[in-house]
Amino acid sequence: MQSHPPRNDGDRTLEDDSHAIVTRRIQRLSSHLTIPVSSPHQSQLHMLTCARAKLEVDTRALSSLMRGKHREIQERVFMFFDSRPDLQTPIEISMKDHRELCMRQLLALVREAGIRPFRYVVEDPAIYFAIAEAVGSVDMSLAIKMGVQYSLWGGSVLNLGTKKHRDKYFDGIDSLEYPGCFAMTELHHGSNVQGIQTVATFDPLTDEFVINTPNDGAIKWWIGNAAVHGKFATVFAKLMLPTHDSKGVSDMGVHSFIVPIRDLKTHETLPGIEIHDCGHKVGLNGVDNGALRFTSVRIPRDNLLNRFGDVSRDGKYTSSLPTINKRFAATLGELVGGRVALAYSSVSVLKIAVIIAVRYSLLRQQFGPPKKPEVSILDYQSHQHKLMPMLASAYAFHFSAQYLVDKYSEMKKTHDEQLVGDVHALSAGLKSYITSFTAKSLSTCREACGGHGYAAVNRFGSLRNDHDIFQTFEGDNTVLLQQVAGDLLKQYNEKFQGGTLTVTWNYLRESMNTYLSQPNPVTARWEGEGHLRDPKFQLDAFRYRTSRLLQSVAVRLRKHSKTLGMFGAWNRCLNHLLTLAESHIESVILAKFVEVVQNCPDANARAALKLVCDLYALDRIWKDIGTYRNVDYVAPNKAKAIHKLTEYLSFQVRNIAGELVDAFDLPDQVTRAPIAMQSEAYAQYTQYVGFKFIEKAINR
Amino acid sequence: MQSHPPRNDGDRTLEDDSHAIVTRRIQRLSSHLTIPVSSPHQSQLHMLTCARAKLEVDTRALSSLMRGKHREIQERVFMFFDSRPDLQTPIEISMKDHRELCMRQLLALVREAGIRPFRYVVEDPAIYFAIAEAVGSVDMSLAIKMGVQYSLWGGSVLNLGTKKHRDKYFDGIDSLEYPGCFAMTELHHGSNVQGIQTVATFDPLTDEFVINTPNDGAIKWWIGNAAVHGKFATVFAKLMLPTHDSKGVSDMGVHSFIVPIRDLKTHETLPGIEIHDCGHKVGLNGVDNGALRFTSVRIPRDNLLNRFGDVSRDGKYTSSLPTINKRFAATLGELVGGRVALAYSSVSVLKIAVIIAVRYSLLRQQFGPPKKPEVSILDYQSHQHKLMPMLASAYAFHFSAQYLVDKYSEMKKTHDEQLVGDVHALSAGLKSYITSFTAKSLSTCREACGGHGYAAVNRFGSLRNDHDIFQTFEGDNTVLLQQVAGDLLKQYNEKFQGGTLTVTWNYLRESMNTYLSQPNPVTARWEGEGHLRDPKFQLDAFRYRTSRLLQSVAVRLRKHSKTLGMFGAWNRCLNHLLTLAESHIESVILAKFVEVVQNCPDANARAALKLVCDLYALDRIWKDIGTYRNVDYVAPNKAKAIHKLTEYLSFQVRNIAGELVDAFDLPDQVTRAPIAMQSEAYAQYTQYVGFKFIEKAINR
Repeated sequence: MQSHPPRNDGDRTLEDDSHAIVTRRIQRLSSHLTIPVSSPHQSQLHMLTCARAKLEVDTRALSSLMRGKHREIQERVFMFFDSRPDLQTPIEISMKDHRELCMRQLLALVREAGIRPFRYVVEDPAIYFAIAEAVGSVDMSLAIKMGVQYSLWGGSVLNLGTKKHRDKYFDGIDSLEYPGCFAMTELHHGSNVQGIQTVATFDPLTDEFVINTPNDGAIKWWIGNAAVHGKFATVFAKLMLPTHDSKGVSDMGVHSFIVPIRDLKTHETLPGIEIHDCGHKVGLNGVDNGALRFTSVRIPRDNLLNRFGDVSRDGKYTSSLPTINKRFAATLGELVGGRVALAYSSVSVLKIAVIIAVRYSLLRQQFGPPKKPEVSILDYQSHQHKLMPMLASAYAFHFSAQYLVDKYSEMKKTHDEQLVGDVHALSAGLKSYITSFTAKSLSTCREACGGHGYAAVNRFGSLRNDHDIFQTFEGDNTVLLQQVAGDLLKQYNEKFQGGTLTVTWNYLRESMNTYLSQPNPVTARWEGEGHLRDPKFQLDAFRYRTSRLLQSVAVRLRKHSKTLGMFGAWNRCLNHLLTLAESHIESVILAKFVEVVQNCPDANARAALKLVCDLYALDRIWKDIGTYRNVDYVAPNKAKAIHKLTEYLSFQVRNIAGELVDAFDLPDQVTRAPIAMQSEAYAQYTQYVGFKFIEKAINR
Repeated sequence: MQSHPPRNDGDRTLEDDSHAIVTRRIQRLSSHLTIPVSSPHQSQLHMLTCARAKLEVDTRALSSLMRGKHREIQERVFMFFDSRPDLQTPIEISMKDHRELCMRQLLALVREAGIRPFRYVVEDPAIYFAIAEAVGSVDMSLAIKMGVQYSLWGGSVLNLGTKKHRDKYFDGIDSLEYPGCFAMTELHHGSNVQGIQTVATFDPLTDEFVINTPNDGAIKWWIGNAAVHGKFATVFAKLMLPTHDSKGVSDMGVHSFIVPIRDLKTHETLPGIEIHDCGHKVGLNGVDNGALRFTSVRIPRDNLLNRFGDVSRDGKYTSSLPTINKRFAATLGELVGGRVALAYSSVSVLKIAVIIAVRYSLLRQQFGPPKKPEVSILDYQSHQHKLMPMLASAYAFHFSAQYLVDKYSEMKKTHDEQLVGDVHALSAGLKSYITSFTAKSLSTCREACGGHGYAAVNRFGSLRNDHDIFQTFEGDNTVLLQQVAGDLLKQYNEKFQGGTLTVTWNYLRESMNTYLSQPNPVTARWEGEGHLRDPKFQLDAFRYRTSRLLQSVAVRLRKHSKTLGMFGAWNRCLNHLLTLAESHIESVILAKFVEVVQNCPDANARAALKLVCDLYALDRIWKDIGTYRNVDYVAPNKAKAIHKLTEYLSFQVRNIAGELVDAFDLPDQVTRAPIAMQSEAYAQYTQYVGFKFIEKAINR
């Protein structure tokens, strides 16, 4: 491959004023993408990483970046469960036993190990997420059950209620005296929360709310902790207030209420409440999901979680927020913590899967050159293609998820409005992008490990079954990506608030088209490795795509909305909008990774990270090469060079794959799969199945 | 969209003689792709399908195409199990109970329902595959257990043995008196069968073979029927014959032997045999896979399955085939039936998943335009994008799998050598392509059905877990695709046997480059719907890609083999080779589908099939648009038109999606998921969970 000519900004023919303005605007648009693209390490990095020899990797230096800040509390979790075989989940366990075990695991964590997750939900969410990640490696059902108790049930009391609720419930929730549920989803309504039909009608005579399930479609469904253990539920219902007009009641929108569902002493289901077990799930069978129907269930007025809206003794409604939509948004806004936790935990699942798949692929040998020993299956180009971009993605996602946790923690402290919006979009985007990627990767890992990957003890089945629903709960991924796209469009419009809409859009169409549809014909041909591995090229390519998708979908939406209305236009552009959202998230992830590489203090670790980051970037560009080719952003020769370099980088990453997965620093008790053990993996596997560990040598 | 100008072959500038020769050769190369591309129905079809209105579909006419020829025996299976609740697999069942149930299911099928699959294994394999499909819909474990007994254990006795084996074992296998195993795979060797290490040494003193497991890596692993029920095993081992030279023995290559493993009466494991249970798997836990270690196990000489090689009383080896490799190929060649069965059954799994996902997506409503009813989630473009090309693929695969079964049956009758080669490549290609596609689709379906897709009762979990290993057993998909690529290269070379290799390749490089690298610049811009939906355009595009990949990989292999050797060169081109194989299989599938459309006697059904076929074709072209753009086979405007038309066709297919899945004609007892019931789906779901079926109407 040739090296590219030195860049010269004077070459650019489009550098007129209006162009510069638009460029700056676009740069500001993707505000959290912007990072310094040149640093003192840069040239040094190039020298290090373009070298042909295998990199020497200092696993310890890399580990210190990958272990996370709260490893200590995670190690307490690992050690506690390691010392308690009675609390470990066996491979075969009935649903009933699994649920009981899961409850015992949670009780032991809180009451015996002395780890109190609820304290961190508000105080220091980063620690809460670290605990969730650690217990998830014990049993994902435990992590979800803990999340239901502390993040959903507990979180709703803390975030949607007021001091009176915190005073009354905090200790019971914390100590698990009050196991509870989060009853939002109904049989007919999941994503469309505003469409739920459960009603809570104020009865001024008794100063109570009356909760009712008006039809079977409104049965609360999939409610964690409901089938067996829950004593309370935060129930989402339409608040109905009596009026003096002919309608008799007025719908104030969706609110949440604390509803006792089982007797605190006898554990009997309370009158008016019908609970059924939702039954077996694809995974997470340690969590007892139930379905709830309410028939005239009466609760005191105080049980309304009244942070964003309250009802007085005489049935008057008060709120600091002016409209139903604003109150609804504020309510849901308090629940983004769940998404942060899922994005974070999904990275953790991905890491475990990648460790198992990589270690086994290094161990496993099959076929080879004539009369030579067989080679590791990770030596096959096809296997590198399956696993190395995935390993690179695990690294990339790690840093983004970490960043999201930091931003979320900051938001919880400052309540800064801009930050709230940012965290909302970022958590929606990362949750959906990462969980979709991990779900696919788990299948790829199983397949890449062949028959032995199909042994339950080697984990891919349970990881996939448990993780699968991460794509759906706390917001369906397809719906969340639309929120990201919506946010981008909102920002896009805000940037151009000055003129009337039409003028603004015309202006955009003209000027952005110049920028967007005529990529530099010179750089489009550059194919040197130095250029392709320059983070500036990579970031430009990612952002170019996002900007182009944003501008083009805005134009299309405007066009179609004239004939189809906004709903119809949105639907007509839906695939386009989802691509835009994914493209944006990929840009965010790359920008964060590039920043980490540039700021990495250890030269050796930096070189390894740079290699991994380049593979992440180029693999993504190659996956969407049709888009880049179609607008001549890259010429055919460059497309070919990108492909070739991606294969080459996969090979380079393969050479340090063992060290890269070691750097995740997850002990054997977390990965657990015999085929991934750090010593004598095959022997541990045969022993697991029942063979004694004697290597025999009989030849006839 | 504009209509394209009339085609005029005189436009073609490349129509010189040498070009024509190469073109013809390339056409012959992909021999089973060639079908007549114009038919009397053609213009009529265009009129029918280009219409904007929703097609009226006659489900019965379509059904008759989709029900298969052996529906009657399948209905006997359905009815038998429907009448026997004691034989239905519950959602929760322990591994131990599942294995016993599965054995009881198989016994009941054979001894009570009177369906004797073994009779059809050789006589009429199409009926055998139909039975396998039907029992797979009862429990996939049952289908696999049946396959182990009749296709693998029974099939190896029939196909690798001779009359003496058939006479001795047929009845016992048929009646299940002799449950047996197929012991090929070892702990260290799966794909590389020639690398297995188990040895069978002839002892001339006692006229016996002595079977030994020389090291732990040679333990037979994943052997179905071994852990619990098997009495015999066909054991693959290296045949060692005594020699009079210093080595003492001579390795005659892999052969197969009937080894009794348990006492026929007491069921005790026989001396020298150690069996352990491989334990829980990701799925198929009704099948009892075990691991076997042999220590000086003696079997009579007659137990060698001696169709392709025999040993005389005095230890002399005889074979009709000259080399170890030829004998090995002949042995494995007899085992392709398993691949045919998997391809066929995988289509069946895909159909079930698509039926459930489509029916639920029509039922499920979420969000909608302001002040209007909510819309079905299948009305969303994103949802159509997920499910409609998948539905089209299920149709496409159905016809290809049917074709494969026909070819296989013909091969079993005629033993035609050309056909043997064809069926081998076709079964390898379709098995790998279809099972990979189905595996991904099962995850997509689960995700598309959201939370209710995660209920075990709605099937996606068990379908995915059971089907997952289809990608691995009977040949790992990545390995099988390489066989397809190898076969294409072999054919390619054979076509040009005349000259010396170098000259041939040079000739090719020059002349094919003309054909391949300069697509017609006029047609590359045609974007009319009529042109894009012309099967000639679609087939040309698919075949162009395959030809180009074939030619270019041949050149690359030749180049790299000089420096890397053949093994290294193959590995350097591995991703390229896999893409070639997939491209070829996609072409085969499309050609078969186009043929079915053109020959469909019912005009109404034909119109529906044409729509589905167009979506299949254009979706695949769009998925690989980067390749087409990169060589300017399609211009940017055409790429855009293909994308737009794909979205439009997805929408059109959505309009008849209900009818299209009904036409698969699978009864509710086969699909079983409550969310996919043909009436009252939600009510059947709530009842399943335990709610009584009373639609209440309480408003406060």
